[in-house]
Amino acid sequence: MSVLVVGSVALDSVETPFGKADDVLGGSAVYFSASASHQTPVQLVGVVGNDFPVEKLEALSARGVDLAGLEHAEGESFRWRGRYRHDLNSAETLETRLGVFSHFRPKIPAQFRSAKFVFLGNIDPRLQLDVLRQVEKPTLVACDTMNFWIESRRGDLLALMAHVDLITVNDAEARQLSEKANLVQAARWILDRGPRTVVIKKGEHGAFMFTKTSVFFAPAYPLESVFDPTGAGDSFAGGFIGYLARTDDLSEANLRRAVILGSAMGSFVVEGFSIARLLEVDRAAIEARIAEFHELVSFDKTLPP
Amino acid sequence: MSVLVVGSVALDSVETPFGKADDVLGGSAVYFSASASHQTPVQLVGVVGNDFPVEKLEALSARGVDLAGLEHAEGESFRWRGRYRHDLNSAETLETRLGVFSHFRPKIPAQFRSAKFVFLGNIDPRLQLDVLRQVEKPTLVACDTMNFWIESRRGDLLALMAHVDLITVNDAEARQLSEKANLVQAARWILDRGPRTVVIKKGEHGAFMFTKTSVFFAPAYPLESVFDPTGAGDSFAGGFIGYLARTDDLSEANLRRAVILGSAMGSFVVEGFSIARLLEVDRAAIEARIAEFHELVSFDKTLPP
Repeated sequence: MSVLVVGSVALDSVETPFGKADDVLGGSAVYFSASASHQTPVQLVGVVGNDFPVEKLEALSARGVDLAGLEHAEGESFRWRGRYRHDLNSAETLETRLGVFSHFRPKIPAQFRSAKFVFLGNIDPRLQLDVLRQVEKPTLVACDTMNFWIESRRGDLLALMAHVDLITVNDAEARQLSEKANLVQAARWILDRGPRTVVIKKGEHGAFMFTKTSVFFAPAYPLESVFDPTGAGDSFAGGFIGYLARTDDLSEANLRRAVILGSAMGSFVVEGFSIARLLEVDRAAIEARIAEFHELVSFDKTLPP
Repeated sequence: MSVLVVGSVALDSVETPFGKADDVLGGSAVYFSASASHQTPVQLVGVVGNDFPVEKLEALSARGVDLAGLEHAEGESFRWRGRYRHDLNSAETLETRLGVFSHFRPKIPAQFRSAKFVFLGNIDPRLQLDVLRQVEKPTLVACDTMNFWIESRRGDLLALMAHVDLITVNDAEARQLSEKANLVQAARWILDRGPRTVVIKKGEHGAFMFTKTSVFFAPAYPLESVFDPTGAGDSFAGGFIGYLARTDDLSEANLRRAVILGSAMGSFVVEGFSIARLLEVDRAAIEARIAEFHELVSFDKTLPP
């Protein structure tokens, strides 16, 4: 089953302590697609300007990402320039040029409207709501958001939350949204507003998945070297939702496997710039990493008498 | 098998968003003992001043903590006064009065010197080394430390590390000690300097255990309300080392169970002030929490074809 993603398609320029990359593929829809394409066909909706090196997207098409929903608009493409310092924990944004993205109004092509799995990348919640009006009867709608929308579009975001099945936020966003310092309380607050599942991403500290009746925790893979953290969250979402679409199984057991799949993809993407590592890894590498995640947390709970 | 702990015995005054406690039992040896006493008899070595309300320690004696090594010195007891703000992540120290602790020279009673499991709480590494000269032939020596000693007694700490089997540090201390931002690299650096096992405590983000050949991760239990974080690290160590002493089994599988036991005790202690919750919980509560830890991280690693 294919998955529809709506989000940004960008050109990123990134500096880390380990190197520098200019005008490489970035944006939530790109990271999501590259990651999800390991699981299932992807339908991408986004916008680029007429300066965009579209040949860079061929690697995605070759992996089963349908670009029929990629609008080519007059103007500059979305560009982000950022830097990570030694601790790699937070990006310092040096420049954001929204370009054509500032007027983005997602138009879902007719052949994408019956998508059963939908991921609304981090864009204005009004646009995310507008996408939901265009799709027919999805099995699962997931959305991401960010501090900017939580602050400036709170009402729209709450309206959106009533219509989504699953939301992914980072820990700071969960706290900001719920106004609760405690993450368990924050998750309950969010679950009371619509989503049946909330995934709280904590970056290098792993991810929680909360439902009304369960809590699951996946650690981040303990990498000896993180090269570039950009896109980890969207790559996580791509693995997570892509796996759910492939298996069409929303049981708790399968949601847990999906979180680990997402964590594995997040752990790969940070090993290189842009989507380079996501294009390299194969099924064997993904399965090996999942086995390592299993080993990482395994213990025998039986205590001696 | 009993466990010997050397560390501080203090009177803490703590303010959290949920309440206030004055002159309650605190100090590394106290938290460690209260926690370890659920597993095995404990031998405590520490010092108090002549103002110390010794009757407060009866709850520990009643649980099998041997206080024969508690020195009663002329002067004031060690007092710490601190405050936690809304996020509970870091203590703000309002006042530290070392009192008799500033002249503490641990004297291990003859009947404690054959201890097989030894925990050197966070004190001057010169004193930790001095304790090792007084004990006979322990099976396992574990130590804790802190930023102050890493900075001011680096040479002594490195000398100590060559003589310990296991070290517990928090993530900031691991980075400071190794001068590596990456925790995996930090752990390898530490393992190259003596300890066969390093436990890196990340507070609300869980704990890693590294050996030369394995990595284990235990999440922190997702508590809906953390009342007072004081003593979580020492309570973790008490559960961890106490369990190893009880089982006298240093296999990887048993070390993993010990980390979970420690995490369970750390999750209990923060539910109340001082050691109140550690005195309340029973074996059934501990086993139930261990089962919850297991459920929290369990997933089926088999992916569909």
